[in-house]
Amino acid sequence: MIPGTPFLAVDKVVLLSNIEKMARHCSQQGISLRPHAKTHKSFEVAKLQLSGGASGITVATIGEAEVFARAGIKDIFIAYPLWLDSSKLARLKKLKRKTSLTLAIDSIEGAATLAPLKRIKVLIEIDSGHHRSGVQPELAGALAKKAALLELNPVGVFTFPGHSYAPNAKSLAVRDELSALGEAVKSFEREGIACQVVSTGSTPTAKKTKGGLITELRPGVYVFNDAQQLELKNCKANEIALWAEATVVSKTGRKLILDGGSKIIGMDRASWSTGHGRLLDFPEARITALSEHHATVMFGTKSKIPELGDRVRVVPNHVCNAVNLVDELYPVSDTGFAKPWKVRARGKNS
Amino acid sequence: MIPGTPFLAVDKVVLLSNIEKMARHCSQQGISLRPHAKTHKSFEVAKLQLSGGASGITVATIGEAEVFARAGIKDIFIAYPLWLDSSKLARLKKLKRKTSLTLAIDSIEGAATLAPLKRIKVLIEIDSGHHRSGVQPELAGALAKKAALLELNPVGVFTFPGHSYAPNAKSLAVRDELSALGEAVKSFEREGIACQVVSTGSTPTAKKTKGGLITELRPGVYVFNDAQQLELKNCKANEIALWAEATVVSKTGRKLILDGGSKIIGMDRASWSTGHGRLLDFPEARITALSEHHATVMFGTKSKIPELGDRVRVVPNHVCNAVNLVDELYPVSDTGFAKPWKVRARGKNS
Repeated sequence: MIPGTPFLAVDKVVLLSNIEKMARHCSQQGISLRPHAKTHKSFEVAKLQLSGGASGITVATIGEAEVFARAGIKDIFIAYPLWLDSSKLARLKKLKRKTSLTLAIDSIEGAATLAPLKRIKVLIEIDSGHHRSGVQPELAGALAKKAALLELNPVGVFTFPGHSYAPNAKSLAVRDELSALGEAVKSFEREGIACQVVSTGSTPTAKKTKGGLITELRPGVYVFNDAQQLELKNCKANEIALWAEATVVSKTGRKLILDGGSKIIGMDRASWSTGHGRLLDFPEARITALSEHHATVMFGTKSKIPELGDRVRVVPNHVCNAVNLVDELYPVSDTGFAKPWKVRARGKNS
Repeated sequence: MIPGTPFLAVDKVVLLSNIEKMARHCSQQGISLRPHAKTHKSFEVAKLQLSGGASGITVATIGEAEVFARAGIKDIFIAYPLWLDSSKLARLKKLKRKTSLTLAIDSIEGAATLAPLKRIKVLIEIDSGHHRSGVQPELAGALAKKAALLELNPVGVFTFPGHSYAPNAKSLAVRDELSALGEAVKSFEREGIACQVVSTGSTPTAKKTKGGLITELRPGVYVFNDAQQLELKNCKANEIALWAEATVVSKTGRKLILDGGSKIIGMDRASWSTGHGRLLDFPEARITALSEHHATVMFGTKSKIPELGDRVRVVPNHVCNAVNLVDELYPVSDTGFAKPWKVRARGKNS
C-alpha cells in the first residue's frame, strides 16, 4: 500500500537510464565501476547496478557490508579508514568468509587494528584535495610497505575528490585526483609494490574521469541524482530519479508549507545551494526554510502556485542522507507504484 | 550488547534531572506540560515524562501518535495542520478510539478534511512570529467558528515560537508568543467561543514562560538538550543528556576525523552555529566539516588532542534529527550501559 505523504518515490525508468549511462562511460574508458551503495542501501538497486555491469560495490561501514553480503554480493570494498575494536574485528572475520572484502587504511596505527585479518586486501587512502581522511599521495607507498610488514595485503590506492562538490570545481577536482593518484602510484613503485587498484570517484567528477591510470570508479549519487547535482549542473532535471512526495498543508499568499521536512529530505544545505532542496515541477520555487516536518516554499509573483491539498515532488539536496531516513522506497512507473524496496542498510552506522 | 561506534548514548541521571526541572517550572507556573515526543520517539522517555507530571504528549504525525497510543498513552496532541486523505482519515478514526486525540488546523480547507472525525477536538494554530504555518492571531476566532460549523470542536489555540532559535532572541519570542496568544484569545471571545487551551512552547522560551494566559507548554528538546541549546545559552554542558560516541579514525596534526558523521548526528547547522555539533569534553574544539561518516574536528594550538582510537562524545546540533537516525538509544549511568531503548517512532513521517 502506498503510504500517505511524505514518502520517497523512485522513477524506475530514470534510475535504469542513470545506471546504464554510468556503466557505459566506465566501459568505454576501460574502468571498473564499483558504485557506492550508501546512496541507496537497498538490494534492488545494487542488483540493477551489478546486472548493468558493476564489478562489485562500495560501502562505508561494516554494517552496510554485512547487509549486502547477506544479499549474496561477492565483492565489497569498505571505503573507510576503520579502527577495529574486538567486536568489529570479530564481525569482519565472519564477513570475509562470505564475500571478497577489501578494506581501507590511512595510518599504520589503524592498519595495526586490521592486522589480525591476515592477508586481507587493503587500499591506502590518499588525500587528493578534499582534506578529510587520507595520507599525502607521496606517502602512500611507505604506508603500503608498513602494512605489508603487518601481513596485510596492500593492493592499491583510493581517493575521494569531494572538493568537486562546489560550483565550477569539477575540472579542478578531476585534475587533482589524477595528479594525486599518479604521485601515489609512483610512491608504490619506489617501494617495489605493485599498485593494482587505482580507485577514485564522485558523481560530479565521474563522467570526466578517463581510463589509463585509473582502474576503478566509485560514484554513488548518480543512480538517483539530487538537487545538489542539479544545481552543480552535473545532471538535468529529467535525470532525477528520486523525490519526496509531499502535500501542501498550509498556504499564505505566495508561501506554501509542505509536509516534507528535514525528517524526509534531510538537512543538508551547502553554502552554494539555493535552498533546502528543489521542487521538480516548479523550477522557480525555492525552499527557504526547513523544519522537521515543514518545508517553507516561496514562489515568484508570476509563478503558478499549487493549491492546498495538492501533491508536489520535492528533490532532496543530498539524496544519500534522505534515503537513510526511510525504511522503504516506492518505485513508480507508468503503471503506478510497485512493491516498495526495503532500505535494508539504513542506519547501519557501525 | 553495546554496538561499535558511532552510536547515541543517553545519560540517565541528566535526563531525569532535565525532566524534573521542566516539570517543576510548569507546576510552579500552574501550566500543564505536554512535551513534544518527536525529540525522543521512545516509550521509555515518554513514560518518564508522564510519571514526572506531564499531562500528555505532543507529536507531529499520525504515525507517531499511533506508536505512542500503542504504548497506552491516553492523551495526544498532533501539533500539525494535517491534510487528510482517505487513508489518513481511516487511521485517525481508529486512533481516536484508543486515545484522547487533539488535532490542529490553520485553514478552513484543512479543517474540512478533518470534518468526518465528528466532534474531534482541534486547536487553531497561530503564527506568533516564526512565520511557518498558522493564521494571524486576530483571525483565530473566526476560523474556530467556521470549524464549529463543520462540527469540529475548537477548544483553543496553539503556537510555536520557533524564532526563539537564534542568539538573543528568547525574550523577544516570549513577548511575541504572549502578545499573539492574547490576541487570539480575544478573537475567540469576539466569536463567543471558549478558549480553554492556550498552548505554546519551545525549549528556548519554556523556562521564561509564565502562567496566567498560557495553559500548556510543549517543549521537546529540553529532555536531552543539544549543541544548539548550549550555544544559545539555554542549557549548560552538564545538562546535555545525549551524545554520539565516536572514535578517532584519522589524525593529521590538529585535525581529527571521527567516525560520527551526518548519518548519526544529523546535518542541522544554523547560520549562527559555530560548527556541526560540539565535543562534550573538548569545549574549544570545533567540527568544521561533516560528511555522512566523517566529522572533521579542528583543535586549537594549546588544546589537548585525543589520539587515534580514542573515544569522544559528540553532541549533535539538533537532537531531534539525530535521534531520528537511529533504531536504539543506549542509556548509560555509573554502572555502565543498560538495555537499549527502542526509538519506536523513528521514521514515522506520515
